[in-house]
Amino acid sequence: MDAIGVFDSGVGGLTVVAALRRRLPGESILYLGDTARLPYGSKSPETVTRYTRRNIEFLTERGVKAVVVACNTASALALPQLGVQGVPTWGVIEPGARKAAEVSRGRVGVIATEATVRSDAYPRALRAVRPDLAILSKACPLFVPLVEEGWHDDPVTEEVAERYLRPLLDAGIDTLVLGCTHYPLLVNVLERVVGPDVTLVDSAASVAEMVAAGLAESGLTATHPAVHHFCVTDAGESFQRLARTILRDEDVPLEWVEVV
Amino acid sequence: MDAIGVFDSGVGGLTVVAALRRRLPGESILYLGDTARLPYGSKSPETVTRYTRRNIEFLTERGVKAVVVACNTASALALPQLGVQGVPTWGVIEPGARKAAEVSRGRVGVIATEATVRSDAYPRALRAVRPDLAILSKACPLFVPLVEEGWHDDPVTEEVAERYLRPLLDAGIDTLVLGCTHYPLLVNVLERVVGPDVTLVDSAASVAEMVAAGLAESGLTATHPAVHHFCVTDAGESFQRLARTILRDEDVPLEWVEVV
Repeated sequence: MDAIGVFDSGVGGLTVVAALRRRLPGESILYLGDTARLPYGSKSPETVTRYTRRNIEFLTERGVKAVVVACNTASALALPQLGVQGVPTWGVIEPGARKAAEVSRGRVGVIATEATVRSDAYPRALRAVRPDLAILSKACPLFVPLVEEGWHDDPVTEEVAERYLRPLLDAGIDTLVLGCTHYPLLVNVLERVVGPDVTLVDSAASVAEMVAAGLAESGLTATHPAVHHFCVTDAGESFQRLARTILRDEDVPLEWVEVV
Repeated sequence: MDAIGVFDSGVGGLTVVAALRRRLPGESILYLGDTARLPYGSKSPETVTRYTRRNIEFLTERGVKAVVVACNTASALALPQLGVQGVPTWGVIEPGARKAAEVSRGRVGVIATEATVRSDAYPRALRAVRPDLAILSKACPLFVPLVEEGWHDDPVTEEVAERYLRPLLDAGIDTLVLGCTHYPLLVNVLERVVGPDVTLVDSAASVAEMVAAGLAESGLTATHPAVHHFCVTDAGESFQRLARTILRDEDVPLEWVEVV
């Protein structure tokens, strides 16, 4: 199997898959959504690290040539603990931080899960490239359940976003990092709340760039026709529904797998 | 160990523990919150059954004399599959349904997780005691995250509750079953939304009555001073915070355990 392995706690990582398919249409993808244990964003570093290790093992046992950790919480909490893997492994924090550092005029807001915010991974990655930045972070634990309820573009979601983002907007941020792969689905609401003067940064496209460069460097670029395959640890209706929205496919066949 | 084992996917089951402590102050309790794998309410019957089996095994391996499944989703999906356990085992569906059947004038609303609603467990249990009842169910997947965010009594939560409950209120329910052990924490919001003509039914007190009767029948009533012990599969701040609110204790010491 000559695929790129991509995993997330659930369906959000498919926003990264969509970007990978656009940037690297010749690459096969093996996706794992750990839906039996989601969400990760409210859990401890130890638990998220244990789950991440097992998910990467699952993908490498299936013979993937590289792994993309398409979950901000797992990238922030687990990747620094896991060390070098048997195959090239990329997270989503660094590319998002790099892009925000490029576009910001000086004040960056970061929205993410509780666990990602607590890890301080984005401020560290942002300051590594631009020590001059002022950075404000805010955990938004209701955003994922609102997306999963299908209220992507809803007055309630807008009220919640207004509440979460008000302190960042009052502090004058000019750039907002969407530090969770679910958040690009809220783009309409977020654009209305932040207004035209704040740039939204979604790491998916930057991740795809990084993966393309990394594969080329390692001589791993695909030579076969692309085949995509999707695995989940729990079969759920909401995964199917959101997967169709994100990937714009009519049908996303799912294989149920056990990862413990 | 002469304790009653109680488990829930997270912190909600402590509303049942609070009722057990009031009704049975001499009984020791061993609590397990499966916080590493919560929530259960959006997951499949197979996954919830697997988790429930392992949680009951964990409690019986620690020598409990009886088990209370203080999670509506696990009670609805897993208990009918598991059959007779080594110790008396009670769920929370039947006592809640019985109490609602007693107080209703004919039209019962049931709010619960997606998985509980899909299982049809409450309508079946209600019709078993009162076949004349009209029953309307509504899944409320945002209620648990709103409670965990600490927005128990908040205008956003009231707007969400208004949206979820409107169809039930328009249909003229006179009784509303809180079919998730988290929901009693929303009592202020729910009372405002349903108004004075709808009776809220929380199964915790009925569960405690059933357990008291069951223990007496089986000659299992405690003779030792009560000791309470709390285990979680993932250590989380929000568990501690909500545990203090529900149990009105200053401190709830937690043991971290692994259940896979």
